[in-house]
Amino acid sequence: MLAVLVNGTKPADTSAAIAVDDRGFTYGDGVFETALLCEGRVRFLDDHLQRLGIGCERLGITAPARTLLEGDIATVCAGRREAVLKLIVTRGPGTRGYRPSSEAAATRVVTLHAPPQASAYVGIHVRWCDTRLGRNPQLAGIKHLNRLEQVLAQAEWNDPTIEEGLMLDTEGELVCATASNLFLVCDGELVTHDLRFCGVRGVIRAQVLKQASLTGVPARERPLWPHDLEGASEVFVTNAIRGLRPVVRLGDRAWRPGPVCDSLGRALG
Amino acid sequence: MLAVLVNGTKPADTSAAIAVDDRGFTYGDGVFETALLCEGRVRFLDDHLQRLGIGCERLGITAPARTLLEGDIATVCAGRREAVLKLIVTRGPGTRGYRPSSEAAATRVVTLHAPPQASAYVGIHVRWCDTRLGRNPQLAGIKHLNRLEQVLAQAEWNDPTIEEGLMLDTEGELVCATASNLFLVCDGELVTHDLRFCGVRGVIRAQVLKQASLTGVPARERPLWPHDLEGASEVFVTNAIRGLRPVVRLGDRAWRPGPVCDSLGRALG
Repeated sequence: MLAVLVNGTKPADTSAAIAVDDRGFTYGDGVFETALLCEGRVRFLDDHLQRLGIGCERLGITAPARTLLEGDIATVCAGRREAVLKLIVTRGPGTRGYRPSSEAAATRVVTLHAPPQASAYVGIHVRWCDTRLGRNPQLAGIKHLNRLEQVLAQAEWNDPTIEEGLMLDTEGELVCATASNLFLVCDGELVTHDLRFCGVRGVIRAQVLKQASLTGVPARERPLWPHDLEGASEVFVTNAIRGLRPVVRLGDRAWRPGPVCDSLGRALG
Repeated sequence: MLAVLVNGTKPADTSAAIAVDDRGFTYGDGVFETALLCEGRVRFLDDHLQRLGIGCERLGITAPARTLLEGDIATVCAGRREAVLKLIVTRGPGTRGYRPSSEAAATRVVTLHAPPQASAYVGIHVRWCDTRLGRNPQLAGIKHLNRLEQVLAQAEWNDPTIEEGLMLDTEGELVCATASNLFLVCDGELVTHDLRFCGVRGVIRAQVLKQASLTGVPARERPLWPHDLEGASEVFVTNAIRGLRPVVRLGDRAWRPGPVCDSLGRALG
């Protein structure tokens, strides 16, 4: 880690900085964001802070004031041009037991990490994951800290040439990749899963849908299934760190980056 | 908290004791146990340690050696007769990203808490929770740290006369209560949910099934549905801290503690 603030303070020791009874630690009771610092600015910071706020609201966590978060972000990013910024907000320390106390003050952790390697716009290879996503509309869309499914999914492979894994939910819908949203171009229409039961509403996902709308590309959120891949002329994944990446291989199936992906990729820079 | 050990060491400050990058904190990547210290002994300690080990194995976490955990437990319980013991094992610190590293050393946290109030064998009132349990067979049964569903469920009520909330899964099966397993007596048979998709395989749940088998009470694990409650002659919940508790009221419906519940309650002391 390049920099750390816990509740606005630099901890004396990052290996001993979080309370033993913090509900983020005891129950995954919180939300997080991962954003890209690029040329000294946090990309889509407003969108990240907005999603963080929505997540807190859904979980009934009183979010830290935006000015506090912005202050922390400015401090950890100071003097840096390129990095990965991570924000964690938990319900804070609590007594034993699941029931949240109304008195708890949220914990906020802001960390800065090394920038991603080579952010060139290159096609990636993906695989299928066996790990499924459970369905729960109450938790769908937000970036909460209960991430065991993603952990188990990424533990499925070690091959460094495979950059992402596609995930089905327990009913077999094709929802997303382990740390990315998934887009297909089917019959000239840009489609991505509607995430009504699971998955994270990615910041770049929203930008892609917005950009498609602005440029007249027909786009829709809907349930997706593995068979939708068969007829897809283009496939790409998005996340805040790697941006938009065309998928060029899944097992025996190959695609080339196509015009929709290329133009959206250029627009998102 | 009455006592705390983090990786076998008493932290100087319990409000700053866990690493910022501990995967328990960042992803809920770990498991836990809550056990009862009663008359100076941890009840069903073997069963708790066994379930902890199974959970670690399912998540691919290298569990701490049993002797380390036993040493920690002896230290935090020293000189105490009645308390609640909690064990947490996480995958340990890690770099950013879901993928677990094979090099990580698990984090173990052992804490001691105030004993529960009045452990008398009394009937409790329960309610329905709106929060549903998502289904994921890969995570079913183990006591992992992804507990947002239980947190949201317990946040649904404040009435102190209601001790537990019954939870359905997303398909409508009646799985358990927020922090307890659920048993019904239907047509003279003791039944509890089979937990094939979600829920925690409670230590007391296993003891109840074992005791039923020893005493010739017909017992079965099977899918349960809300309508199974209608014909139930007895209803009770179990967990490691409160033991076995008859349910005497759910909304308009009342039950009296019955013979199956009474005899199992006595047998489990």
